[in-house]
Amino acid sequence: MQSSSSTSSLSFNRIVVCGVGLIGGSFALALKQAGVVKQIVGLGRRRETLQRAQSLGIIDTMGDASAVAGADLVLIAAPVAQTEALLRELAPYLQVGTVVTDAGSTKSDVVQAARAALGDKIAQFVPGHPIAGREQNGPEAALADLYRGKKVVITALPENNPNDIAKVASAWQHCGALIHHLSAEEHDAIFAAVSHLPHMLAYALVSDIASRDNADRLFQYAASGFRDFTRIAGSSPEMWRDISLANRHALLAELDAYTAQLASLRAMLINADGAGLEQIYARAQSARQAWIATIEAAEQARAHDQGGD
Amino acid sequence: MQSSSSTSSLSFNRIVVCGVGLIGGSFALALKQAGVVKQIVGLGRRRETLQRAQSLGIIDTMGDASAVAGADLVLIAAPVAQTEALLRELAPYLQVGTVVTDAGSTKSDVVQAARAALGDKIAQFVPGHPIAGREQNGPEAALADLYRGKKVVITALPENNPNDIAKVASAWQHCGALIHHLSAEEHDAIFAAVSHLPHMLAYALVSDIASRDNADRLFQYAASGFRDFTRIAGSSPEMWRDISLANRHALLAELDAYTAQLASLRAMLINADGAGLEQIYARAQSARQAWIATIEAAEQARAHDQGGD
Repeated sequence: MQSSSSTSSLSFNRIVVCGVGLIGGSFALALKQAGVVKQIVGLGRRRETLQRAQSLGIIDTMGDASAVAGADLVLIAAPVAQTEALLRELAPYLQVGTVVTDAGSTKSDVVQAARAALGDKIAQFVPGHPIAGREQNGPEAALADLYRGKKVVITALPENNPNDIAKVASAWQHCGALIHHLSAEEHDAIFAAVSHLPHMLAYALVSDIASRDNADRLFQYAASGFRDFTRIAGSSPEMWRDISLANRHALLAELDAYTAQLASLRAMLINADGAGLEQIYARAQSARQAWIATIEAAEQARAHDQGGD
Repeated sequence: MQSSSSTSSLSFNRIVVCGVGLIGGSFALALKQAGVVKQIVGLGRRRETLQRAQSLGIIDTMGDASAVAGADLVLIAAPVAQTEALLRELAPYLQVGTVVTDAGSTKSDVVQAARAALGDKIAQFVPGHPIAGREQNGPEAALADLYRGKKVVITALPENNPNDIAKVASAWQHCGALIHHLSAEEHDAIFAAVSHLPHMLAYALVSDIASRDNADRLFQYAASGFRDFTRIAGSSPEMWRDISLANRHALLAELDAYTAQLASLRAMLINADGAGLEQIYARAQSARQAWIATIEAAEQARAHDQGGD
């Protein structure tokens, strides 16, 4: 389900961003550029990172958990495994009227962590996931237009107030994002298939090749197809360890479906079943071509809406 | 083993190109641009394709198998499964002094086909594989600089004369390519790992997702990581069916090694073994980063050699 693309006119007095790297930093920069926030306070484990974010104009000031008191909106932009500990720190300062959201790549575990940490304040937590990224990390990688034209999935809780959901949606819309709504379970099943499994498959291939005695020779002959296929194996091992574990039930289901697909391809190879192989390959090719055509049409429509071409 | 990068000064009176699409057409265009060939004759199943190649200036004239008589060099640039039938057609016209090479993505099967088709003329066949391509096909996709800075692997036969090998190497060097030498078996084992298996894995993922009831919704949330991972699943199903079958023994060995890697990742997920997952992911990330650094250093060195930067 996709919301209307009309941008809300809500604006914000104070926003707290926990984690001022690529994801949190880009959110802050976009809201500043949109002119919809008076003050952005940065929180983080490392003072040096916060100082860099401040000198880059990403945040106005550094703070601690107490900065949450009286804030309009709090974004948790830290590794998903830290969500519960972070929310426990913030909970004592969380007042009525403040909405907390997050940017985690998995949602069922984040919701579980939030319930444990926030208790009867859970209604103030509106889970979210911006579908955007770059290979670089840290405040220096933050971009005001990182979220422009990208999807943000909100996995609202039954306890959430519609106005609080609208507040989170509004902030992301000010970043140029398109709001989608899913349940946490739907979200995790979908991203296990189209994101988490592909990351695991790419890591598995590169790791397998790197472990061979003739790894250097194999890499020497790897070309552009291998380069694209394995680009996501350049992602942060810590982040993807956390995502793999956080979403392991859905990921296991996808891995088993995929392994079954490989087993049938293996049987086709053994039986020299060219027609069978071609059928699988052709289904993949035509599905991918249709998908790319859909993406390109959407991009053109957006460029047109923005007066570009 | 990589040959010296010095370009030979050999030139050619007549070259015959069987298959005037992306691969054969780019070879022809590059040799014309280098000014090292007097006449290029195009052969192919479809007269209409040959006419387009001629009007694009890729070939000088169309011919049939008899054009091979007296040619300096013949390139077979057709799907690998057609190699034997093509060589059988050409064999009666193959005179002493003519060298035949090919551009097939697999080599052991091509060598077997050539031995069957050429008999005691096998010494005239020098197998090759240019490591270059695009997603487009046909004469219109051909580019004079497709092979510039790319590898061409020559898998010479024990019967080949060194001068004939040098002639094939010289033609590719005139296209700007870097010559490597491997045995057919080494070639097929290497490309099973770094090219054929990744293609099969990408096809398997897209095909699996496309077969689901909620395929549209899954594709809706697929993002840039999925796009890169699956780019090679946009390749020709017929071509990759042929390659999969032609190299199925090496491909099966790679598929089994990969499936074993997935089985150990599965066990780590089940046991919530974060340290184990992170170790695999980190090995992949660091191997990939080292590989990319090597590629970029080589590209810079080449740009420097060419007076660019």
